This record gives sequence, C-alpha cells and structure tokens, in this order.
Amino acid sequence: MNTILPVAIQKNPPKLILLDQTRIPETETYLALDTKESIFEAIKKLRVRGAPAIGIAAAYGLYVCLVQRSYADIDELRSEFQQLKSYFASSRPTAVNLFWALERMERRFVQEAAAKTKHIRNILESLYIESVTIFEEDQSMSRAIGEHALSLFDASRAWNIMTHCNAGGLATSGYGTALAPIYLGIERGYRMSVYANETRPLLQGSRLTAYELMKANIDVTVLCDSAASLVMREGLIDAVIVGADRIAANGDTANKIGTSNVAIIAKSFGIPFYVAAPTSTFDLKTATGKDIVIEVRDGEEVINGFGKRTGPVGAKVYNPAFDVTDHSYITAIITELGIISHPSTERVAEHMVKAFIKR
Amino acid sequence: MNTILPVAIQKNPPKLILLDQTRIPETETYLALDTKESIFEAIKKLRVRGAPAIGIAAAYGLYVCLVQRSYADIDELRSEFQQLKSYFASSRPTAVNLFWALERMERRFVQEAAAKTKHIRNILESLYIESVTIFEEDQSMSRAIGEHALSLFDASRAWNIMTHCNAGGLATSGYGTALAPIYLGIERGYRMSVYANETRPLLQGSRLTAYELMKANIDVTVLCDSAASLVMREGLIDAVIVGADRIAANGDTANKIGTSNVAIIAKSFGIPFYVAAPTSTFDLKTATGKDIVIEVRDGEEVINGFGKRTGPVGAKVYNPAFDVTDHSYITAIITELGIISHPSTERVAEHMVKAFIKR
Repeated sequence: MNTILPVAIQKNPPKLILLDQTRIPETETYLALDTKESIFEAIKKLRVRGAPAIGIAAAYGLYVCLVQRSYADIDELRSEFQQLKSYFASSRPTAVNLFWALERMERRFVQEAAAKTKHIRNILESLYIESVTIFEEDQSMSRAIGEHALSLFDASRAWNIMTHCNAGGLATSGYGTALAPIYLGIERGYRMSVYANETRPLLQGSRLTAYELMKANIDVTVLCDSAASLVMREGLIDAVIVGADRIAANGDTANKIGTSNVAIIAKSFGIPFYVAAPTSTFDLKTATGKDIVIEVRDGEEVINGFGKRTGPVGAKVYNPAFDVTDHSYITAIITELGIISHPSTERVAEHMVKAFIKR
Repeated sequence: MNTILPVAIQKNPPKLILLDQTRIPETETYLALDTKESIFEAIKKLRVRGAPAIGIAAAYGLYVCLVQRSYADIDELRSEFQQLKSYFASSRPTAVNLFWALERMERRFVQEAAAKTKHIRNILESLYIESVTIFEEDQSMSRAIGEHALSLFDASRAWNIMTHCNAGGLATSGYGTALAPIYLGIERGYRMSVYANETRPLLQGSRLTAYELMKANIDVTVLCDSAASLVMREGLIDAVIVGADRIAANGDTANKIGTSNVAIIAKSFGIPFYVAAPTSTFDLKTATGKDIVIEVRDGEEVINGFGKRTGPVGAKVYNPAFDVTDHSYITAIITELGIISHPSTERVAEHMVKAFIKR
C-alpha cells in the first residue's frame, strides 16, 4: 500500500523533501530543503514530527548539507560534520530519536574516516547509505509491528478500530505503529474502519490521522475525544490501538494526553486496548509510570489555539501533554518482535531479553 | 453571592435584557430587546441558552412585546398573545422549557381574562408578575439544589471539584444546578476550587463555566476533556458534579457528550460522581437510558469550528451532542427536594412520589 511519506531524500541535486505537517489538512505542501537553516527551522517548528520521522529527517539533512561543498581533507569534513550535528541536535532538545539518528551517522563517519586512504566522496556516499538504512530499518520495524498486531485480528469479520493522536505514516517513514496493522490489514483484504479521536488540544487525530487514512482510501470517522464512551456503548468499537512515547519497565505507558481516558473506558466495556510501539520505546530505567515526568505545555494552546479565543483572557489552564496508562488497562503491547500480553515487569523483561539476543 | 444574570427584565421602558452568550468570553455585551423579531433571533441563535434561562427569556419577552401597544378589548389582546406565543415557540422547537414557560403564561392569561370585568392594564400586570414568578421559582430551585448538594461536602477541608459543560448561572437565573453548591459553599466560607472540562465541541466549559466562575472570583482551572484521568490520577479531584438534560426512570442520565467518560473514569479512581438537576429533568416515561434518542449534530462543528479548519474537507465525523451515563456510575442525583443515593428505578420512584406530594 502506498502510504504517505513525510520525509524523503533527493540525491541530485541534493534536497531533503518534507511534507509540511503544520499546513495539513489545509494544504499539502512539500518543502525541498538544502540549507542547514531551513532544515533546523523545519524540525523546530514541527513541520516534520513523530520520533522516527524526525530522526530520518536529521540524518538526510546532515548528508544534504555536507555533500554540497568540497573539502580540502577529512579533518575539514569532520569539522563541518560536528558543527552540523550540534546545530541539528539543538533544534528539538527533547527529541531522543533526533540524537540517536545523528549519533548513528557519526559512528558511521568515524568508522569510514578511520580508513585514511578513503576518498572524501566515498565517505559522503557511505553517509548517504547510512541515512537510507535508518529510513529502511524504520520501514521494516513498522511492517513487523503491523504483522504481529494483525495476528490479533480475525480476517473473517469486520473490525472497527479506535485510535488516539497520530501514530501513523506521518510520524514514521512507512506504516506507522498504531496504524500499521490497519494499512497491512487493508492491503490483505481485511475489512477495517477507523475511529480517530480528534486529540485535543493539538488535534493530531483530526488533522493528521484522518488525513493520512483518507489519502489511503481507508474508512475513517473523526470523533471528539469526549465521545469515546458513547461510541463504545453503541457497540461501534471492537478494539483500540494507540502508539507510545515511553513505556516503563512494568508496562505503564506514557502517550498523548487522553490515551489513559480511552484505556479506562475501553476496559469498562470489555474492549481490548493495544499499545503498538518499537522496543526502543521501552525505558527500563523507569520502574513504573509514577516515575515518568509529564511535560506541561502553555495553556494558550487550549484556550487560544485556533485563531479564535475559546476561554477567558487570564484563565488558569492545566495543559499536560501526555498521560500514563496503567499497565492493568493494557490488553497487550505489540513491538516489532512480538506481543506482550497483559504486560507486567516480568513479561516486559522477558520480551526485552529476546530483543537483546536478536540484536 | 452576586452570580451572573443571563436574563432580566426592565419595566420602564419595557425591555428584555440578555447577556449575549455567543460573544462570551470575547466581549460581555448586554442586549436590550423590545421587538418580537429581535427576541426570536436571540433565542434561535443561542444568545440565551440553558433550559431555565430560555424559558424565562420567552416569558419576559412575551410581556415586553404585549405591553408596548394598546388594545381595543380583551379579544384583541388574546389574538396578539396567541400570535406571539406561536412565534416564540417556533424559535427553538426542541426546547421543552420554552413551551413550558409560554404555556404557563397562557394559563395565567386565560385565568385573568375569564374575569371579564378586568382592565387590560391589570391583565398585563398579572402577566408581568407571572414572568417574574417563573424567574424567582427558578432561583429558589437552584438554591435548594445547592443546599442539598452542599450537605455532601465537609466544610473543614478544601474541595477540588470537576465539572463538565455549563450548568451554572449562565444557564439559569441564579446559581445554576451543578455550580449551585460551589456558589453557596464559597458564600459560606467553604474552600472550593473548580476544574472545568472545556467540553468539546462547543466548549461551554472553557467559554462559559470558566467565565462565570472567574466573574465570581472563584478559583477555576480549564482542562481539556482528555485530561480527566491524568488529573484524577494526580489526586487533584475530590468530586465531580454535572448537570443533566434528561434523567430516565432508573437514573440513567443524558447530559452533554463526554459526561459519561468522566463518570467511568471517576469510578475507576473511587471519586464520587454527582448529578445535580431539578425534578423536572426526570422523564419517568423513559425506562432506561437505552430509550433516550441522542441528537447527532453537524460534523463541521468538530472539524471547522474555530475559524480554522481542523480536519480534512469531506472527512466523516460522528458528532453526538449528548451521551448517557449509566446509573451504576452515579454516586447520587441531587434535586431541589433532596438526594437520591445510588439511583435505581425504586429510589427514583420514591423521590418522585415525594415531589408529587409536595406539589
């Protein structure tokens, strides 16, 4: 299935291609960037978003900037590399995947540069290959999550699946995480429809999830977050799948604010609630969700966020960006390696040992 | 306590005074209306909203329009009365309280007109008195609900109370229903703070509840509806109080969409969930919530409601305006006559018999 591609690279002439997500759904604008300033700005202003997509954009961007000029020697290239790396790393200081991708590019550079005989052109080419590998690995990861998740669904019947926020192709390079089983299922003839919670305050559900599913001709219905219990009571939802920002050692899952509402309500109606995320999302140093610090954002996002004031000037607003879903409300966590049913500290540990061995 | 007054009457010269709620919180504009067309428009366009407030506005409006001209005889007055009544009744065809208030005015008119000797000026004066009585009875009802509800709260400690939508002074003539114990409690020195869910899609919580509480100098914090489980998990909420649009014979309660989400989440955290509403809200012909038909509104309210498009053009949207909270999630229903703990068909019936006897 042709899913939407939020980030791509053009080799000749070298350009980082980004779908400007701040302008979706109003207009679909692709940016072709080739200066470090424009790439920095695009990451900072969330024109590209979603941990995997940001990492790929930074890796591609690094290559695009490096390849445009000539270097007297490897030292000059190294100096330019370091400057760009620090510069891009400062664009979104809390985005773990951004640093991870930049460091992976650096490891490859160090490796290549160690062989002093190498031609600079060849080193640059190997950086290009590394960035494309990051992209391709992300695609495989999405696909593997999709395969495991799809094993939970029976092809002989229709499925109505609720999701929250956007953990789809726009956040990654391929099928996404939460949406991966949907894309894969539709590809294989499963009958699947999606209910997308709009996801206040930034509305990633109505702006992005509805948009990318409509582009892929998948049946999607937008809901206010507040309609969850009504649609479940009406029997319209068979399962919930969401992504994750961070998963503690016991399976407690931090994700976009409102996720935990949905999990609690789903359980009260006996509807399965699944979390789909790569193993890199687990943070085993964090024992439980209680240890996860929740980012609190500006209240103006809530009462003055869409070109019209929707709350009194000076009103107190509490605007936490994430919440923590207790593992007891999670039917299963699905990673690229398999399924953790009824997650607990023991079951997560067992799964991560498997991940470590595979690596 | 001086709560906000959404509807009032000026006798000389006769005017219906309305706070234009469509312009809150941006500007606080009072309208002084004295033509039937302007009063019809104000009701239709939701410049006045909330069942009790609409009823009062219609009764006041009827008087204001009738008193401005002279009549040859009672028949001419009767004809004008009937025309105005039909006209106002068509302004919001689903607003039960509108018809109720207009019919109450009509009963008074018929009563007075039966005494043929009466002077027309006196008949008009009795209609004025009737409209003011409707207003005053609504104020007493709010106050009685507040008294009963407040008996559930202990004055010796501080209380953080969550509410959903607006069931406050802006919807009635006085303290409202859900907010009545807050106004009354603050008046008596209770330490109470309010968490107001913004209430998508029309944002009555952030636009109206936050506004009226701030005007009364009561501590209020606006939340996205999606933050309910996070704030409860953080221990920030001690109780939930909401209003009701219709209550079935078994206590199942229809109220603004999202109410049932809050009830289910509150129960999972062991937090009491109260419904505050006058006995006139009970519809004993409706056995359970399953028999309540939910109004589904235009999807554009959800994806194109803030002056900026927040979902793709042509996206499917499901926009139910109300939901039903199962009685098993309701700790108590509070009316002007007392408290129904753990509502059930038997307990509601018992309460309504009491109501009938009191009448």
